[in-house]
Amino acid sequence: MNDPLQPLIDSLRQFADERNWQQFHSPKNLACALSVEAAELLEHFQWLSEAESRTLTEHKLVAVREELADVFIYLLQLADKLGVDLVAAAESKLAANRAKYPVEKAASSSKKYTEF
Amino acid sequence: MNDPLQPLIDSLRQFADERNWQQFHSPKNLACALSVEAAELLEHFQWLSEAESRTLTEHKLVAVREELADVFIYLLQLADKLGVDLVAAAESKLAANRAKYPVEKAASSSKKYTEF
Amino acid sequence: MNDPLQPLIDSLRQFADERNWQQFHSPKNLACALSVEAAELLEHFQWLSEAESRTLTEHKLVAVREELADVFIYLLQLADKLGVDLVAAAESKLAANRAKYPVEKAASSSKKYTEF
Amino acid sequence: MNDPLQPLIDSLRQFADERNWQQFHSPKNLACALSVEAAELLEHFQWLSEAESRTLTEHKLVAVREELADVFIYLLQLADKLGVDLVAAAESKLAANRAKYPVEKAASSSKKYTEF
Repeated sequence: MNDPLQPLIDSLRQFADERNWQQFHSPKNLACALSVEAAELLEHFQWLSEAESRTLTEHKLVAVREELADVFIYLLQLADKLGVDLVAAAESKLAANRAKYPVEKAASSSKKYTEF
Repeated sequence: MNDPLQPLIDSLRQFADERNWQQFHSPKNLACALSVEAAELLEHFQWLSEAESRTLTEHKLVAVREELADVFIYLLQLADKLGVDLVAAAESKLAANRAKYPVEKAASSSKKYTEF
Repeated sequence: MNDPLQPLIDSLRQFADERNWQQFHSPKNLACALSVEAAELLEHFQWLSEAESRTLTEHKLVAVREELADVFIYLLQLADKLGVDLVAAAESKLAANRAKYPVEKAASSSKKYTEF
Repeated sequence: MNDPLQPLIDSLRQFADERNWQQFHSPKNLACALSVEAAELLEHFQWLSEAESRTLTEHKLVAVREELADVFIYLLQLADKLGVDLVAAAESKLAANRAKYPVEKAASSSKKYTEF
């Protein structure tokens, strides 16, 4: 029942509190920042082929890891502000996806469930 | 040492395997999907004032929780593909941010560290 | 009937041709780049209040103008690849929006038409 | 000297005025909406290969054309609010890009100019 992410969430809360940044961290602003970081992550992949994206150079991987961290940090902060337990929310969504994408229909297809 | 997110990561891996979806899940495509979901999350906030975003209706919160889950799911899948431990990456980044944004310089300011 | 954007489109095509960049400019990649540039534009606004965003400093406006240009450039290149006339497409969309958002229903409301 | 996009810009201004929507159309909000629409455009490409993205079905192209229009509409509205002439801004940027990416260095390479 304990959220395994709680220690990290607490650290992020303290980090923002110490800098008096909660005033900037409205859910709207955090959602903007999350989108911006997701795009900075995408930027590393935009001119790569899919094959190249599967075999990143070590140099690129270091940069990508930082962007993954930024996305995760804003995601945690936004979920924290809204009182959402991310792991529980992901598990609910995964259960819903199992129903929407039954193996026999979805196998080897990238179609959206509304297109079956 | 144990990744607290491992059970969820394993479930996501199994979900994709059962549907033979790994072929679509190149890091490049997952980075696209992550950006798209982050924007779907942002869509819920785009016309709200910051104050309104701090007091979402229950109805809106349910929808937002689903989008948070979608972002988290793609983030976990992408990190898994690249062998990145998200919690460890976020902790490293937070340590780096503590150095870049010392309390005495960053307090109550939304400036980027390059603008100090 | 002449596309008023044609001279600019021609210049962009020549720019890419001279550098042998058409190989990278698949519609998928251009759509990624467009999303990335739109987020770089958003980055300038993420911590501003709405009121602040209405009165940008001259310094900020110069940077924002460059990002607007980047978004426009990728949008033109993507539309060109797909044979889409942007002005005609926007006029069609605007006509459709007039029907979806009749003045008497949409006045002073930020609701999506599906929520009327 | 005349902005070839002025008639469309005027129509968009009138559309928003008639619905009393200028109150929602702060530059910050328009930047959010632009990012969201760019992602909706990207969504159509996220699971396609680059080759598939070069040969869209007619059905898909119709949907993509609508998203291109949405991106263009928000881009025009944002530029209008900020007093930016998009065509002039794109031409300046293209001139700057010619200097940053000289043909002999940039040919057949997707590297960023900072990586030359």
